[in-house]
Amino acid sequence: MMVSIKDVAKLSGVSVTTVSRVMNNRGYIGKETRIKVEDAMKQLDYQPNQIARSLLKNQSYVIGVIVPDLAHPLFSELIHWIESYASEKNYKLLLCNSLQDKEKELNYISMLRQNRVDGIIMCSHTLDVDAYRNVGMPVVSFDRILSPTIPYVAGDNYKGGEIATQHLIDKGCKKILHISGPLEYELLANRRNDAFQLGCIKNGVEWNFIEGAHVKATFEDNWNFIEKEIASRLGEYDGVFCSNDIMAYTLYHYSTKHNINIPEDLKIVGYDYHSFTRMLHVPKLTTIKQPIDAMGQMLCSSLINQIENKDVAASGNTILDVTLVDGETT
Amino acid sequence: MMVSIKDVAKLSGVSVTTVSRVMNNRGYIGKETRIKVEDAMKQLDYQPNQIARSLLKNQSYVIGVIVPDLAHPLFSELIHWIESYASEKNYKLLLCNSLQDKEKELNYISMLRQNRVDGIIMCSHTLDVDAYRNVGMPVVSFDRILSPTIPYVAGDNYKGGEIATQHLIDKGCKKILHISGPLEYELLANRRNDAFQLGCIKNGVEWNFIEGAHVKATFEDNWNFIEKEIASRLGEYDGVFCSNDIMAYTLYHYSTKHNINIPEDLKIVGYDYHSFTRMLHVPKLTTIKQPIDAMGQMLCSSLINQIENKDVAASGNTILDVTLVDGETT
Repeated sequence: MMVSIKDVAKLSGVSVTTVSRVMNNRGYIGKETRIKVEDAMKQLDYQPNQIARSLLKNQSYVIGVIVPDLAHPLFSELIHWIESYASEKNYKLLLCNSLQDKEKELNYISMLRQNRVDGIIMCSHTLDVDAYRNVGMPVVSFDRILSPTIPYVAGDNYKGGEIATQHLIDKGCKKILHISGPLEYELLANRRNDAFQLGCIKNGVEWNFIEGAHVKATFEDNWNFIEKEIASRLGEYDGVFCSNDIMAYTLYHYSTKHNINIPEDLKIVGYDYHSFTRMLHVPKLTTIKQPIDAMGQMLCSSLINQIENKDVAASGNTILDVTLVDGETT
Repeated sequence: MMVSIKDVAKLSGVSVTTVSRVMNNRGYIGKETRIKVEDAMKQLDYQPNQIARSLLKNQSYVIGVIVPDLAHPLFSELIHWIESYASEKNYKLLLCNSLQDKEKELNYISMLRQNRVDGIIMCSHTLDVDAYRNVGMPVVSFDRILSPTIPYVAGDNYKGGEIATQHLIDKGCKKILHISGPLEYELLANRRNDAFQLGCIKNGVEWNFIEGAHVKATFEDNWNFIEKEIASRLGEYDGVFCSNDIMAYTLYHYSTKHNINIPEDLKIVGYDYHSFTRMLHVPKLTTIKQPIDAMGQMLCSSLINQIENKDVAASGNTILDVTLVDGETT
């Protein structure tokens, strides 16, 4: 059983109030008494009850994090960096995995409120914007604009789309396909598509795009998607800009299997450069690197800033730079 | 700001005690009063304070999970399943990433105690056994024997080593190398090595092993390890049993680059079959599949069983079956 403050009082032969005073450095305590109490705490390995303290202080030092899929390399890496920064600042993470299910996401928000977390980092986006506006505590959002009072952190999606497109054009592509993410939630990631279209138009290059590439997609899901939606017209294109690396990896192998040489016949650019991509030896993907470490840190510090300064406006939004990783697929 | 029980009392025109009675279904409450209070709770979107409740009930419904590296595919997948099962049972996860740092791990244990989590799932193992024995709350361990009173959950490491070795022998290997994990912590994973050695001896096959393959190893780490520790003698072997898939993947590409044909000249078996391996198209690794979903579920249910029945002995240890995935590297 857990050692309580009563046990400490008993062993040191003083009252519970005195032990509490020693712990909180409050009121006058003689040196001898202090030493007796501290010895008893040590001997009993007493751990102060943070739950009781957080109730008194009205702050729990717990941050809720909701992600769409914890086993996805982008989100496991993001959580890794969020945890690392939060722990430096003495905050703890309550982790929620929405599995992109609306009801689960709603239940998690309600659970986090009931558990009085100090704030929420929202990386899952299956609900309408209104559901997040009324949470009643600090929120920071990943890659989505929720409201003027909810700051967001995102990679520079527009620039990502721009440099991916320009890279393909510089490499001589004349007709480019973009496989985007799902467009329904108005995520900031959709700006990659805007930049792609404008880049192609400005350069007089033929283009087309197709909506696909879901967060939870496996290699097989992507393979079937390519087979069903793209295969019959794949030969028309000499460049493809994929909105994530797993799609780019799948397309590389699909093409190779169908005697389309990469990069001679078809050039491929991916997006993310997460642990999966970095671990890959063949192919070394050409891709857009998202600064996942800085994203995790900014999500955390933006939220803590709101929590501690009670000042949402001061937090502002954060757009982080992205860069091209020049690999073997272009 | 958070709506409090006082706001509900005020809006419904009753006392705080009455609201509390309605919430907890305690004492006599007239139907009209109940409806008034429930309407007020709904209108104000009142969320009961679970922290106050957990203090009263002495149960927080929070489980602490300590992992060595959250961005590693094995652990991100394990957490994914732990979270999924915990959430079904109305438990929440406090996530700790030890980064295999002794001090961080100790601090996390102390933090989890102070936050009165109901129990700890221990997947990081950098401390001596004693540190876990005195935690004073339910603990379940992943892949390591800590004490007779701390149940563990593990894959059948001995069988994994056995079928990997037998598979290489059946495929005609005459001299086999095993690249094990780090042996210092007496992890259950070391039994793979025992089974490997005995399997080779029984079959009169030459063998050798080398300690390597750390959890945090990247492709580059593994490549450098192979170059430095194995390369000069790699030609002597016709089979290698690697203790994780990332090492097996690296060895495949290292060998291919050095004109060693896989599987003709050298056969490779990996271990884990986590999301990274499943996503791979080239090569399809021959490997030992750990039941990561069942591991996550059993870690969670074994801990909840201890928490709710206060009966450690009844929980027992869990050894889960592993199977061979027959790929292209043998």
